[in-house]
Amino acid sequence: MAGTDSTKGLELKAGPAIILCEPQLGENIGTAARAMANFGLWDMRIVNPRDGWPSDKARAAASKADHVIDRVQVFDTVEEAIADLTRCYATTARSRDMYKPVIGPDVAADEMVAPIKNGEKVGILFGRERWGLNNDEVALCDKIVTLPVEPAFASLNIAQAVLVLAYEWRRAFNGADSLPFEGPEEQPATREDLVGLMLHLEEALDRVNFFKTPGKRPSMVANLRAMFARAKMNVQEVRTFRGVVAALDRRHERPNPKRDQSKYKQKKDAE
Amino acid sequence: MAGTDSTKGLELKAGPAIILCEPQLGENIGTAARAMANFGLWDMRIVNPRDGWPSDKARAAASKADHVIDRVQVFDTVEEAIADLTRCYATTARSRDMYKPVIGPDVAADEMVAPIKNGEKVGILFGRERWGLNNDEVALCDKIVTLPVEPAFASLNIAQAVLVLAYEWRRAFNGADSLPFEGPEEQPATREDLVGLMLHLEEALDRVNFFKTPGKRPSMVANLRAMFARAKMNVQEVRTFRGVVAALDRRHERPNPKRDQSKYKQKKDAE
Repeated sequence: MAGTDSTKGLELKAGPAIILCEPQLGENIGTAARAMANFGLWDMRIVNPRDGWPSDKARAAASKADHVIDRVQVFDTVEEAIADLTRCYATTARSRDMYKPVIGPDVAADEMVAPIKNGEKVGILFGRERWGLNNDEVALCDKIVTLPVEPAFASLNIAQAVLVLAYEWRRAFNGADSLPFEGPEEQPATREDLVGLMLHLEEALDRVNFFKTPGKRPSMVANLRAMFARAKMNVQEVRTFRGVVAALDRRHERPNPKRDQSKYKQKKDAE
Repeated sequence: MAGTDSTKGLELKAGPAIILCEPQLGENIGTAARAMANFGLWDMRIVNPRDGWPSDKARAAASKADHVIDRVQVFDTVEEAIADLTRCYATTARSRDMYKPVIGPDVAADEMVAPIKNGEKVGILFGRERWGLNNDEVALCDKIVTLPVEPAFASLNIAQAVLVLAYEWRRAFNGADSLPFEGPEEQPATREDLVGLMLHLEEALDRVNFFKTPGKRPSMVANLRAMFARAKMNVQEVRTFRGVVAALDRRHERPNPKRDQSKYKQKKDAE
């Protein structure tokens, strides 16, 4: 699979538990497990799965996220599934008539980080495919998490909802270290580097009479310099562009049949 | 579908274009279109789709996101697909050997908001199912966007990558208004409300000799008050708890056979 690094060992890092309440299809359990694995989660709990457990369909749909499937815990009730948790979030697409704060996945992930680093166990509940969580289940939780969906197209499947929450967790938990790679090391060019390039370019342009109206030269130079400054060039790029300018500049200095003839003409006149 | 509000009209709001480079399966185009619709995006462009266009499989997989499917533009080359854009991001799971900043979906979404509100056209490129984008395509873009995946399980399908970017866009663009609903209106309790409840409770506890050691009463009271203060009760909750305290308190005042006998005994002794 593009991008997967099979050499990296598997480390079960701290993170929220994902609790599926009465999931109907084994395949959805599997895709949810896969979504968890994509972002480093591994603690999956399922409550009263309709088609029982274990599930071949779930394992197949988990597509090699066996470390999640192998650790799935099954419970008869939600109360039992969340018994050891100190914080619990309920994901739902529907407003509920109860005093529960409603937050987005980003806020939920941000506020979970400190408690989890502190050793607390946090969980996120997801409901049934067709009708989500019931009010009793939501009432057991501290806050409601809902995704900022477009109301006319609000339907997300369980794996997609889990994916977004798991993504936000990873972003929040790993912070600046969460991306798998960075851009290359760059050495930004100094003003001296940049002005050196600008003078070089401007001298070459003078040689070809680019600045036709002397009075306009200052503002044209200022505009050119503004563009190059905005490019935030690095040292290598300045070097490359100086080479570009030099190559174009020398072309105008190379022997030119027409120019040579005029030299002869001048010489001849002088004789 | 749970949560979908079919009464809400469809409004095509400003947002980034989603460009799929040589998508192989019509079904993936469809699920990507659906993911866009979930978060309010609608401008999809496909470059040289392997199985051509239009595609019944794509429409079926888009699951009613017809407003996206109907507007798909098809191009022969990436250059043509992005010609009208002023900013372009390349999504990739692999590091590239070129000077391109690498950022996460949250940063990308945040920095797109102002230009798009300003009328600029921004696009996000997604690559082929098997090997993503090639270096020439990445070079055409301003920045690389990569998802903070777990390196050992980095494989996300196109629709999932589009989902995360589209989710981040919606969060960034709509900000505080992005969630489809809020918690109910609450009126926080004042100190006076809370202290009233505390005194009521403490008096009831005095009546049942809860504070067995008088010297410990101040710290026990302080601990009780700390817990209630942390609960950040609202006015309705204070009212409810006062009723709870009152109901339990009155139970101790109700006629009690044993107690009545002692009253008779005292009376008898007095006679």
